[in-house]
Amino acid sequence: MRADGNISPTTRLCAVIGNPVAHSLSPALHNAAFNALGLDFVYTAFRVENLKSAIDGMRALENFRGLSVTIPHKIEIISYLDQVSELDRSIGSINTVINDNGCLAGVGTDGPGALKALLDAGVKLDGARVLMLGAGGAARAIAFTLAMKSSMAELILMDINAETLAGLTNALRAGTSAKITAAGLDEASLATAVGRADVIINCTPIGMHPREDSSVVPAALLRAGQAVFDIVYNPLETKLLREAKGSGCRVISGVEMFINQAVLQFELFTGQSAPEDVMRRVVMERLKG
Amino acid sequence: MRADGNISPTTRLCAVIGNPVAHSLSPALHNAAFNALGLDFVYTAFRVENLKSAIDGMRALENFRGLSVTIPHKIEIISYLDQVSELDRSIGSINTVINDNGCLAGVGTDGPGALKALLDAGVKLDGARVLMLGAGGAARAIAFTLAMKSSMAELILMDINAETLAGLTNALRAGTSAKITAAGLDEASLATAVGRADVIINCTPIGMHPREDSSVVPAALLRAGQAVFDIVYNPLETKLLREAKGSGCRVISGVEMFINQAVLQFELFTGQSAPEDVMRRVVMERLKG
Repeated sequence: MRADGNISPTTRLCAVIGNPVAHSLSPALHNAAFNALGLDFVYTAFRVENLKSAIDGMRALENFRGLSVTIPHKIEIISYLDQVSELDRSIGSINTVINDNGCLAGVGTDGPGALKALLDAGVKLDGARVLMLGAGGAARAIAFTLAMKSSMAELILMDINAETLAGLTNALRAGTSAKITAAGLDEASLATAVGRADVIINCTPIGMHPREDSSVVPAALLRAGQAVFDIVYNPLETKLLREAKGSGCRVISGVEMFINQAVLQFELFTGQSAPEDVMRRVVMERLKG
Repeated sequence: MRADGNISPTTRLCAVIGNPVAHSLSPALHNAAFNALGLDFVYTAFRVENLKSAIDGMRALENFRGLSVTIPHKIEIISYLDQVSELDRSIGSINTVINDNGCLAGVGTDGPGALKALLDAGVKLDGARVLMLGAGGAARAIAFTLAMKSSMAELILMDINAETLAGLTNALRAGTSAKITAAGLDEASLATAVGRADVIINCTPIGMHPREDSSVVPAALLRAGQAVFDIVYNPLETKLLREAKGSGCRVISGVEMFINQAVLQFELFTGQSAPEDVMRRVVMERLKG
């Protein structure tokens, strides 16, 4: 009845779609979790170019229960779904699809996954000044989630692209009641913003494999008492996190957000509490290996 | 890498589609065969109503390698595929789809599966008079295959439905060089035809579970030396086969055709020789169980 080979006509399929998907951890992660709970599910990966046909096909294949959606389809897919929440529409992307008898609901679990990572690490968001570096897709999901689900004193947004920055700033001001400050990502503004911040979140790809020798924040700007969250999870400890730890900061790796978004997906797919320890072990083994 | 739980982003999906599919043996059969050879494939089942969307979706999902197609989709599906052989177009139905980088080829393995069952049992078709009872979809596949791939002296077709009978008779006469005789399925005609036949093939559902106490041929008409093939495989030994065996006939169960059509599908899906013994064991366990 399960991904261990006991597949039957009732087995439900979940899958990651994207382009590419060849290096996705999701099949290993979700199959391990299905097997740990003995659930009648299996999870595969499909490279997809024609997104609309893939989604119409999912609707027509009754046991095709869920999708993890990755680059480049997270934005376009919204137009093919039957249900998407107001918050996810404001974010403008989703990473999860649930098929209920041909009705497809889109859900974003990246923002909630990031929020849970911060809260699980003991980071106090209420009343805090949060600095977000980068205003792209992931930043958008996290910023909207924090703005809607916490009571930050201020959210400071920085990006090197003025248009991207203005787009997210205006959307957050229009859609939420959070206090939003925006600044270009130059040396002087960065020094000021890091100095004022209680929580720093790197949503840029700076520091990601194979550019592991880079950090978006000069080490000298960091100080004890700050919390630093890097959404990059490969490497597990980026240069930013290593230097932040050296400065006495509380640090949170992007792998926590990655695990949490998958845990939330699993619970949407199955209606069951996810075996988070199993999922964490699979991710850690793969990322260290 | 396989259906035993080691599913990765490269794992290819095959599935049976139909309506219903809840009692399909195919997932157990094909997954056991994939596992026996250590192939990076997994096989599930999808109930499908909107066939066109399901097929377009398969085309868009790159790792979706193959389909077994069952009732009620075996005829309609031909219009959605990119390649179907002349023989399969003449038959008018297929039961297998292969996805080669978005190009979908339809293939029928029911006819070849039946032919192989007869030859494996040592039945001599060349020069034989073959009586086929029933002129529906399965009969059509078998009749065209035998007419194209063997040198029967005569193929005698019988059906209770005159229109179905005339349709298949005319198609065979137009599309093959076999000698075709047709007759209504009444008592007198049946006695004559059975008397003349070297090989008798039951393509009607008569004798299938739960109507196991029926046989299309009165036992008294059967005689030693005839070969009797019943495409019904549930029960494994129909009343027709039991009585034929009692009359000294060579008998071939429909399970041989069922296994052969799956073996041929497996080889199309994977490009590898099928582990026929493994597939036979799974089918026998399920049908006896």
